[in-house]
Amino acid sequence: MSGNSYGKIFKITTFGESHGEALGGIIDGCPPNIILDLDAIQIEMQRRKPGQSSIVTQRKEADEVQFLSGIFEGKTTGTPIGFIIKNTNQKSDDYSHIKDSYRPSHADYVYEKKYRIRDYRGGGRSSARETASRVVAGAIAKQVIPEIKINAFVSSVGDISLDKPYQDLNFSLTETNAVRCPDLASAEKMENYIKEIKKQGDTVGGTITCVIQNVPIGLGEPVFDKLHAELGKAMLSINAVKGFEYGSGFCGAKMKGSNHNDPYNQDGTTRTNLSGGIQGGISNGMDIYFRIAFKPVATLIQKQEVLTNTNEIIEQQGKGRHDPCVVPRAVPIVEAMAAIVMADFFLLNKIYNNH
Amino acid sequence: MSGNSYGKIFKITTFGESHGEALGGIIDGCPPNIILDLDAIQIEMQRRKPGQSSIVTQRKEADEVQFLSGIFEGKTTGTPIGFIIKNTNQKSDDYSHIKDSYRPSHADYVYEKKYRIRDYRGGGRSSARETASRVVAGAIAKQVIPEIKINAFVSSVGDISLDKPYQDLNFSLTETNAVRCPDLASAEKMENYIKEIKKQGDTVGGTITCVIQNVPIGLGEPVFDKLHAELGKAMLSINAVKGFEYGSGFCGAKMKGSNHNDPYNQDGTTRTNLSGGIQGGISNGMDIYFRIAFKPVATLIQKQEVLTNTNEIIEQQGKGRHDPCVVPRAVPIVEAMAAIVMADFFLLNKIYNNH
Amino acid sequence: MSGNSYGKIFKITTFGESHGEALGGIIDGCPPNIILDLDAIQIEMQRRKPGQSSIVTQRKEADEVQFLSGIFEGKTTGTPIGFIIKNTNQKSDDYSHIKDSYRPSHADYVYEKKYRIRDYRGGGRSSARETASRVVAGAIAKQVIPEIKINAFVSSVGDISLDKPYQDLNFSLTETNAVRCPDLASAEKMENYIKEIKKQGDTVGGTITCVIQNVPIGLGEPVFDKLHAELGKAMLSINAVKGFEYGSGFCGAKMKGSNHNDPYNQDGTTRTNLSGGIQGGISNGMDIYFRIAFKPVATLIQKQEVLTNTNEIIEQQGKGRHDPCVVPRAVPIVEAMAAIVMADFFLLNKIYNNH
Amino acid sequence: MSGNSYGKIFKITTFGESHGEALGGIIDGCPPNIILDLDAIQIEMQRRKPGQSSIVTQRKEADEVQFLSGIFEGKTTGTPIGFIIKNTNQKSDDYSHIKDSYRPSHADYVYEKKYRIRDYRGGGRSSARETASRVVAGAIAKQVIPEIKINAFVSSVGDISLDKPYQDLNFSLTETNAVRCPDLASAEKMENYIKEIKKQGDTVGGTITCVIQNVPIGLGEPVFDKLHAELGKAMLSINAVKGFEYGSGFCGAKMKGSNHNDPYNQDGTTRTNLSGGIQGGISNGMDIYFRIAFKPVATLIQKQEVLTNTNEIIEQQGKGRHDPCVVPRAVPIVEAMAAIVMADFFLLNKIYNNH
Repeated sequence: MSGNSYGKIFKITTFGESHGEALGGIIDGCPPNIILDLDAIQIEMQRRKPGQSSIVTQRKEADEVQFLSGIFEGKTTGTPIGFIIKNTNQKSDDYSHIKDSYRPSHADYVYEKKYRIRDYRGGGRSSARETASRVVAGAIAKQVIPEIKINAFVSSVGDISLDKPYQDLNFSLTETNAVRCPDLASAEKMENYIKEIKKQGDTVGGTITCVIQNVPIGLGEPVFDKLHAELGKAMLSINAVKGFEYGSGFCGAKMKGSNHNDPYNQDGTTRTNLSGGIQGGISNGMDIYFRIAFKPVATLIQKQEVLTNTNEIIEQQGKGRHDPCVVPRAVPIVEAMAAIVMADFFLLNKIYNNH
Repeated sequence: MSGNSYGKIFKITTFGESHGEALGGIIDGCPPNIILDLDAIQIEMQRRKPGQSSIVTQRKEADEVQFLSGIFEGKTTGTPIGFIIKNTNQKSDDYSHIKDSYRPSHADYVYEKKYRIRDYRGGGRSSARETASRVVAGAIAKQVIPEIKINAFVSSVGDISLDKPYQDLNFSLTETNAVRCPDLASAEKMENYIKEIKKQGDTVGGTITCVIQNVPIGLGEPVFDKLHAELGKAMLSINAVKGFEYGSGFCGAKMKGSNHNDPYNQDGTTRTNLSGGIQGGISNGMDIYFRIAFKPVATLIQKQEVLTNTNEIIEQQGKGRHDPCVVPRAVPIVEAMAAIVMADFFLLNKIYNNH
Repeated sequence: MSGNSYGKIFKITTFGESHGEALGGIIDGCPPNIILDLDAIQIEMQRRKPGQSSIVTQRKEADEVQFLSGIFEGKTTGTPIGFIIKNTNQKSDDYSHIKDSYRPSHADYVYEKKYRIRDYRGGGRSSARETASRVVAGAIAKQVIPEIKINAFVSSVGDISLDKPYQDLNFSLTETNAVRCPDLASAEKMENYIKEIKKQGDTVGGTITCVIQNVPIGLGEPVFDKLHAELGKAMLSINAVKGFEYGSGFCGAKMKGSNHNDPYNQDGTTRTNLSGGIQGGISNGMDIYFRIAFKPVATLIQKQEVLTNTNEIIEQQGKGRHDPCVVPRAVPIVEAMAAIVMADFFLLNKIYNNH
Repeated sequence: MSGNSYGKIFKITTFGESHGEALGGIIDGCPPNIILDLDAIQIEMQRRKPGQSSIVTQRKEADEVQFLSGIFEGKTTGTPIGFIIKNTNQKSDDYSHIKDSYRPSHADYVYEKKYRIRDYRGGGRSSARETASRVVAGAIAKQVIPEIKINAFVSSVGDISLDKPYQDLNFSLTETNAVRCPDLASAEKMENYIKEIKKQGDTVGGTITCVIQNVPIGLGEPVFDKLHAELGKAMLSINAVKGFEYGSGFCGAKMKGSNHNDPYNQDGTTRTNLSGGIQGGISNGMDIYFRIAFKPVATLIQKQEVLTNTNEIIEQQGKGRHDPCVVPRAVPIVEAMAAIVMADFFLLNKIYNNH
């Protein structure tokens, strides 16, 4: 009820604050007999990790996952997979200045009001550090549904936007640059822009596009748990996300039905795919694609007004090691959440597939 | 698990197909001792009902709600509220032509593949007729949280867009026109455009904006069940929705942090509200506002190619009584889902508020 | 959260008060393409119905189930099955005397304290009339798992107890007598005893034994959702139940391990079955059997002291048409709940069976 | 869905195998601002720990709980409490002999059949070692509801039974003897009997009685989630439990209504309490009491026939360090589960209490 779990069948529950002893989670409902590729999991962790390039935060975190249960002789056993990620680089003193004040557009204030207590160090539970646990679960989810291909990439940073359709992109280029944009010309522009923003002590928003391919027909539950509704919730649950659209999205709202409908081929595929691979909340076998908006990171390396817990407004100089633009590091998180949603519906669908 | 329920504490489960005996649902977790205003519920039903004006479908449905339990001497008792809405205007013959074929961008094909059976009459369970039950639950949810004000309105139809900020609108004008746009000049343009589209036998998409005011601080659960993530899921679960954004939304992705952050006033309110009333997934007491994209209705009164269940592509003339633009009728549905989400988090929050 | 639902995959939610308009429920998660035997459902309703013999209450209720959705051309469609059972024989005046008073060992008092409102007519939501909806769901659950055989029967009434092992009983005799005891000699004694009790205006308790046969190996989830823990909860949720034991039960607590362990045969079956078909919470393919204790019905046709809502103790003459012994009518309810639990675990297990 | 969680509002999810790296869990939904008494938690762990006396297993486990999150400056924060308990005394070689065979009345066989893989070391996930995590959660649950008093004790071992009503017992004596029986004369008999059984390399069952006092009126949800149904499920989920009865229990099934009904006092208390503090599934403020049957431990220090995975029956000598009677060590586990259930319903009830 408290919102620390995601999924119905393949279910992840996470715990941990930014500067506590450790983060971690429990993956419940992972099918047995999956030969886990632990390296693949660690690679996903590396992708999310801070300090990978000059355009992301220079905090150092080992981000090593330690599995405590649910795996035996290299295989999943069907029992819950408990794991922890130790917080090795907690510089609590960095955050003492926010103990008695609420930074603008952070969760400090609302946590204080909701719970009347908060671990103020580094944002505590509201820190994006929590997503490390999601990446672990997502990396395992990918191994539950190896046939389904999930590729996310940065499609815009500020006003710089990648305008090619995803079909024209080579996803294998995504990891070749610091921005995680598979179009190298755009990537360069984005990277330069982020560097400029960083110099200003400012931050900038962006969008991520995610493409899910090779999806079986029939995933998703109609009515409230539509496949795109769950994907939307999963994406909106990622820190800093402000919007979600799939298929034709907001552009579709401007279109006429005669242009928007996707005519069928005889094999059940469609000639166009404005539906984004989902009809009535259920996958139709075509590519699923969606776009997610991220706001600019709220922590600036600038002077900003903050509210104190004695109701004063004071100026405070932002400091620390923060991302000028969160989207490059969010790419593996988007993929992780997409993998969790898809694995969950995939497993749920077995009930119907086999009756 | 099958996706026919929504909510944790205030929980609605719906049943019913477009052309079955009746629709209905069970509202579980409604607090006791609420003096139900049944007229207010019926008014919401009227708002959603077809046949209200020349720009919506001319199907006639009585849409009378019959409550079967959970109410005693005019008050809720805390026990589940069962209700039904009879389907009085089922013209099954209208739909016989789709028995063996799948209309483009409808759910016919995926239901058939997922379940290997479907009630093809009028879209069966995938019909937006299901939302009648949501409106009942939403009308009751509104009465659970009378202090919270929820106002949705049409903010664009096709390319015609209402460009005023919501603060400049008079919500009491929303119901004065067929389009449900509180800006009368825009409303007239939209209405004329929809009439034109209707003449063409075509359909058009649009957007709805929803504003939630007078929200207590502290609603929403951090991490996976963020307030905006649940609002997003709820909205994306409405038929024909393709996108959701809140606060600064997709525009926020283009902004810099120094412009995007909302500076505090001494009383904890913020001078700007690009956060959209939610920080870290928790309401901060400012207005919540979001925008939803609806695709054009897939049913056209035109010839279209359809796929048959023997894998042929044939031409079919669309017929029946359909909405040229779904957004005016979707306004009460958006409000209903918003009310359910808000009532649910409001009740859940009592656990913390009182410990 | 409010406790009106049961099951994870095959999920029943019920609504309705004893003297409201109707009872009913929604069965969500029933697999598609089951050819429903509606007569079999009605037969189960008849078994639960009052007025079947001289030893049960003489209230007349039609107890006809009306299905509103989820069934198309005789088959389940995978969408929720909504149903109602009209309350045709509500004699509200019969109950006016309990409006302002709380009968001993009934739920009147606690409902009033918990909700500060109650539908006092006939016990309202706390009436065993609610179990009619469970019987509908159970009758459908049986058709989901036709291979699994569920047989319940009365194993004791007051001190009169059926002491044969279930293996020596002929379950086809259960329905041949008013008590629902498959041992006809015992049945006669029980029936005579109940008649005597009825003459006294008194009531008596009893036990029901339930045997589940032909169970696949592997049903049940370890740790918290053990198969017997769910069966126990399901049985304890039936009105008037005070105890549950399975396999060796309370007798097992007196035994030594060397006598209690069930030695294996080479095919994995066991030579004895004190485990009751469940080991570590998972079915092992042997017969599951359990025993349930029912207290005597609290409503007596005698003078009793009651508490008024002005804190007085007054004498009240019990009246109405009540069961002197509830166990015969509870037999189909026990089977229904057992069927729901088994169908639920059966469907859940498909996820693992097919990975 | 996989059964590793318990509770709705106060929710515990556990992970861990007997001989894995660590056990642990996540407590989600614990209210904020509880000043945690960590010593009290560790004391509960000591009570459950092996090796406390000559009549329990001599395995040595440190059983130190390490909290990783959700606690800040000594108080709960409302965020999930993650914790681990390292397995320090894993003697894996002790268990190699069961790698290829299934011990009678253990879960070895059914795990193998259900998952087609199992961590065979020490029973893996099916080991009662998992209950260490429950004791942590229970110790915290007790601190959520400090006003509610929960006392469990051993009420029988084999045929030796404590026949006094619980009202005549001094619960403070429970921890003064190895058996955890507050009647010292009975305790001595039980202890001697267990020693005798131990010499034989045999095991014996027993019962635990649990009394919950000072319970507010109104806890429990009617219909499916009755307070006693949840208590029953919670108890039946503990390893080796075969039966549950509350209030009059199985004896109540032999009684007449005229003797069984609990007459009211003017203040709403009852003169007798055969109801066991619960009416219609809701607490009435009287003492809740229930009794639980435990079978004898299946592991014997004797020769026994086991089934091999090549379908042979072979004789095997039981070895290792096992409990001759599990009930003394189960006392804190029973209290822990009772505390979790009560805390959960207590928190859930706040929703109604405050509307």
